[in-house]
Formats: sequence, structure tokens, C-alpha cells
Amino acid sequence: MALKAGEFELIARCFRPLASPGAPAFGLSDDAAVWSPPSGADLVFTKDAMVEGVHFLPDDAPEDVGRKLARINLSDLAAMGAKPVGYLLAVALPVARGLEWCERFAKGLKQDQDEFGWQLFGGDTVATPGPLTLSLTAIGVVQSGLALRRNGARAGDRIYVSGTLGDAMTGLLCLRGKLAGISEASLNFLALRYHRPSPRVALGLALVGVAHSAMDISDGIGGDLAHIAETSGVGARVYLDKIPLSAAAAEALAYQPDIISTIRKGGDDYELLFTASKLEPATLRALQTAGHVTVTEIGEITEGGAVQFLDRNGRTVDIGGGYQHF
Amino acid sequence: MALKAGEFELIARCFRPLASPGAPAFGLSDDAAVWSPPSGADLVFTKDAMVEGVHFLPDDAPEDVGRKLARINLSDLAAMGAKPVGYLLAVALPVARGLEWCERFAKGLKQDQDEFGWQLFGGDTVATPGPLTLSLTAIGVVQSGLALRRNGARAGDRIYVSGTLGDAMTGLLCLRGKLAGISEASLNFLALRYHRPSPRVALGLALVGVAHSAMDISDGIGGDLAHIAETSGVGARVYLDKIPLSAAAAEALAYQPDIISTIRKGGDDYELLFTASKLEPATLRALQTAGHVTVTEIGEITEGGAVQFLDRNGRTVDIGGGYQHF
Repeated sequence: MALKAGEFELIARCFRPLASPGAPAFGLSDDAAVWSPPSGADLVFTKDAMVEGVHFLPDDAPEDVGRKLARINLSDLAAMGAKPVGYLLAVALPVARGLEWCERFAKGLKQDQDEFGWQLFGGDTVATPGPLTLSLTAIGVVQSGLALRRNGARAGDRIYVSGTLGDAMTGLLCLRGKLAGISEASLNFLALRYHRPSPRVALGLALVGVAHSAMDISDGIGGDLAHIAETSGVGARVYLDKIPLSAAAAEALAYQPDIISTIRKGGDDYELLFTASKLEPATLRALQTAGHVTVTEIGEITEGGAVQFLDRNGRTVDIGGGYQHF
Repeated sequence: MALKAGEFELIARCFRPLASPGAPAFGLSDDAAVWSPPSGADLVFTKDAMVEGVHFLPDDAPEDVGRKLARINLSDLAAMGAKPVGYLLAVALPVARGLEWCERFAKGLKQDQDEFGWQLFGGDTVATPGPLTLSLTAIGVVQSGLALRRNGARAGDRIYVSGTLGDAMTGLLCLRGKLAGISEASLNFLALRYHRPSPRVALGLALVGVAHSAMDISDGIGGDLAHIAETSGVGARVYLDKIPLSAAAAEALAYQPDIISTIRKGGDDYELLFTASKLEPATLRALQTAGHVTVTEIGEITEGGAVQFLDRNGRTVDIGGGYQHF
């Protein structure tokens, strides 16, 4: 099965410009990439896949698809405190798809290469009779033995999150026309938060040696905090009114109060959730400066195994996903 | 879009048994894998994708699909002289597909983990409305600065290949019923060569410091040798009657002489093609012993830029693919 644009043309036009002519990628002309890791470093690897019609839509801008694919993986590196180095890419392209989609997709990847300081190491382009299917393997480095993990939370730790939560899911509601009437500025902000998450790479680097546990919030804070609690063998208590909302999400909430469960449940925010000993104000400010993002304390780690979300009256609220186990 | 078998169940039943409970994979329960590379090593990375209906068929044994996916990537590591260490896997699974396919697919991967001494580092499982789509990122190590490359062929080098060529394409003809009458033993051998290539990992390791250039033969010797010639800035001369054939391919050829072009063109053999100074008989024997495979001299590297295939009368033969450039 041949692609409309030949594989070689696709590689030459779209992907070779993302790779180095020498090591590690050799202009994508060898069997594999070769890379010399820095001494004293551990390597961090993660891989996420996206399918058209499932994880993105046919009319999404190809640049945004490329950046989202990069960024969901960069967010996993950030959660481990790793510095991005390179990535490998697999593209299964519908046979009728021409060069243009790939060129725009690669343009998005290039923008994020410049922003996050990594590059294409290699990959594969194949034809598919099905939907466009993408996967990316991300490679990062962290000082040996210091990768952030999910399993280090201790009773008494405070729970912190970066940025604001619930924007991505509120943005998705906007994109589906469920929030007609919201201001255009807020709609644009929320839609961008959905289409183009901001992986907290700089914050992750600053958290090495500070955080006891960390992960990125991709499934919603309920389920994600449960993972930290479970792997650390602890409980957690979160104060719902401390969860930081963007002005746009707050506007949407004021305008349509029944989206509170969407905002609380969240998902696709790709903010960092971490636990640490209570941070001194100066430390918190330094983290925010280094990470270019706000950091908010939202609760604490407890000895018991339960993960509780409390409203302003101290009542337990089931926010969904909070007790979802394997 | 939810899988029939939930993602968590798939991971727990099929993929977690392929990963270590501690580093690097942490039982697939963290955001990413963390791995400490050996000092003095370069890392080698490659990634190949396969789509059902394009690269394998719906009724292929899932174990063989898993092993082929592993082995085409292992073959790229072998071509660089790298030792396999670990891999990341992306599976886009049709929603109606149950657990059984994945369990058998994982069983094939496990068999090759045991054979090649590597393990699952991580990955992603998603649902797709389209065909089953797989990708694997392979990680290997090679002594720093010693990775085999395509660009080191020198005029006067001899050209060598491992094993036998043309089996995979002859096997595909068998599977398509185009070689009715061939003995069952030969049919089984050729079909297995198509379904389950033998990555020459041990030979690749033995070639480090010996070969001047190397690659694996995946597209057929014509096109593949042209890549070596092009990146090395040399020409090549191959004697067609020196190309090693298996007894089964020879039987098929005797029985149906018009498949000579299929055998010559080849493809999907995943044997190693390499160039080196003429090997002393003792060196050749040592390579064959270390690599558990025969090694045959088939021609030489020339100064001129042409890649020529000569028949027993010294006439140039166009075997197809030999002059295919980007």
C-alpha cells in the first residue's frame, strides 16, 4: 500500500528538517539513531499514542495535533523531573492524505522543538487504510537517582498543583458548543488550553530534590491523586475551594454552575500534581519563577488510605474518578 | 471510546508481566520509565510501525505479530552493532477486539524478551475505530563511538551477507498459494522466514570493530545496497550467483524458474549486509560461530558510483530497486 506522497518524499520534506544531519539522527538515513548520554544521568522514557477521531478531530489544525502529541509526552517527562532530549515518531497516514497535512504537523513539532530544546531522533512513516494514528516516544535525562516518582508521598506532605485545573474540559465543552454565551476571550483561552497543553517542564526540573512525589494530571485530579496515594501507601485530603481556577473557567462556572463537576473532575490539564514538605514562601516563589507558572497548595497527605475531597463546609464530595482503581 | 477489555485490565493482564516491578518500568505504574545507562556506552534508538491489513493479516497468529514487531526493530539494532536493552510499545486496538488477541501478542513478545534479553520499558494502549496499529521503539547500547553505520564502505571492501536471501518473499508467494506443489517442509520453512525473521543481533555484536559499514536488508538487496553506496560515496559490484539461497528457495526456484526476480529482488529478509576488508577464513569462521549464522561474500565495493549486479556471464542485470533513490 503506497502513500499518495511517497514515503521518501514525506521524510525528506516533513521530517528530515526536524532531525540533525549528524548524530544522533544522521538525517534519518541510517538504520537507527546513535546518542551519547551525559555521564551521571538517568534516562527517562515515555510513549503516548493518538488516533484521529478519538484523541483529535479531522478538522483540528495539524500544527496543534503535532504540538499536542509532543506536549502530552513532554508532560510525562516533566512529571519525572526530566529534561527533554529527543523523540521518535511513528505516523500511520491514510493513503489519500497528501503532503500538506504532514508539513503542517511537522511545523507544529518544529515549534515545540525550539521551545523545549529537543529534536527528532528517528521513526517510521507507514500507510494505513484506517484513521491517522500517531505515536511518540520521548527521551529525557535526569540526574542519576533523582527522578520524581509517584510513590514518595509521606503523611504530612502538602499537596500542590501547578497552574489552573479544569480548563481543558471546559474548553472541550466550549468547542462542542455547550457554553454558548461565554465571552470570546474566555472561549479562546479555554479552547487553547484543550488543544495545546503546557507541559510544566521547567517546573519539573525545579522540583527535583524538592518534591517527594509527582505526576501530571491527565485523567483528572481525582483518579490521578488516587494513583499517588495508592503507590505511596497513604491517604489524601483536598480542599475543593483551594483548587485554582482560571478567570475563564470561573466565568464559565458563574455563567453555568452545573459544570462544577466537569471542572472538579477535570482531565487533560497536564498540570503537575506534587507533594512536598510545606514549602516556605520564598521556596514557593522561587519554584513559581523557575517554572513560569503558579503553584497552589490544595491539601495534605494523610496516614489513612482514603482520598477525600472536602467542600467549604468540610463535607466529603465525590468528584468522580477519585476511587477508581484497577 | 472505550475498549471492550478496559485499558487497565489489558495492561495488567498482558503487558505488566513483560515489565519489571522496579526500575526501569516500575510495573508500568508511573509516568515514565527510568533507566541508568552503562558508562562508556552510546545508545541506539529505532522505531517501526505495523498496520493490520498492510504489514500483517488479521488471521496471522498474534504471537507471530508480536515477534515480527519485535524482530524488525531488533534487526535495526543488529545493523548498528547494538545490544538490545528495552522497548516501548504503542497498541491502537480495535474497540471490539478482546483480551485474547493481546494475551497471545504479549506471549510472542515475552518469548522474544527471553531470547534477546530485553524487556518492556513502557508504552500506551488506546482504542481505535480503524485497524490494529502497532509501533515499537527499541533501545540498544553499543560501545561509545563504535556503532556500525551505512556510510563507512571503502573501495576494495568485500560485500558480505548473513544467512540466505529471498526466503521471505518466496514465503509470501507460498502463503498466497502461488507455489502450489512445493514440498511441505520447504513451504513451512519459507513461511516461517516471512512470519518470523531472525534478527542477526549476535552477528551485529561480533561485527563491531570489524565491519566498515552495515545495514539490515529489509527492502531488498538492490535498494539497500544502493543506500550504503550512496551514503558512503562509493559503487558496488555483486555477483548474482554468489547470493546465498536456502535449500527451500532453491527448490522453489527449480520448480518455478520465473520467481528468480522475486528471489533476487528480495525484501523482508532482515539479514545483515556489511562491508569489510577481505576477511581471513579464521575471522569468517569466528564471525559465523559468534553470529550463529553463515556469512557469504557476494561482491566488492568499487570507486565508481554505480551499483551493479552481474550474472555468471558478467552481464549487468537490473534486479529492481537497485537504483531507487529518494
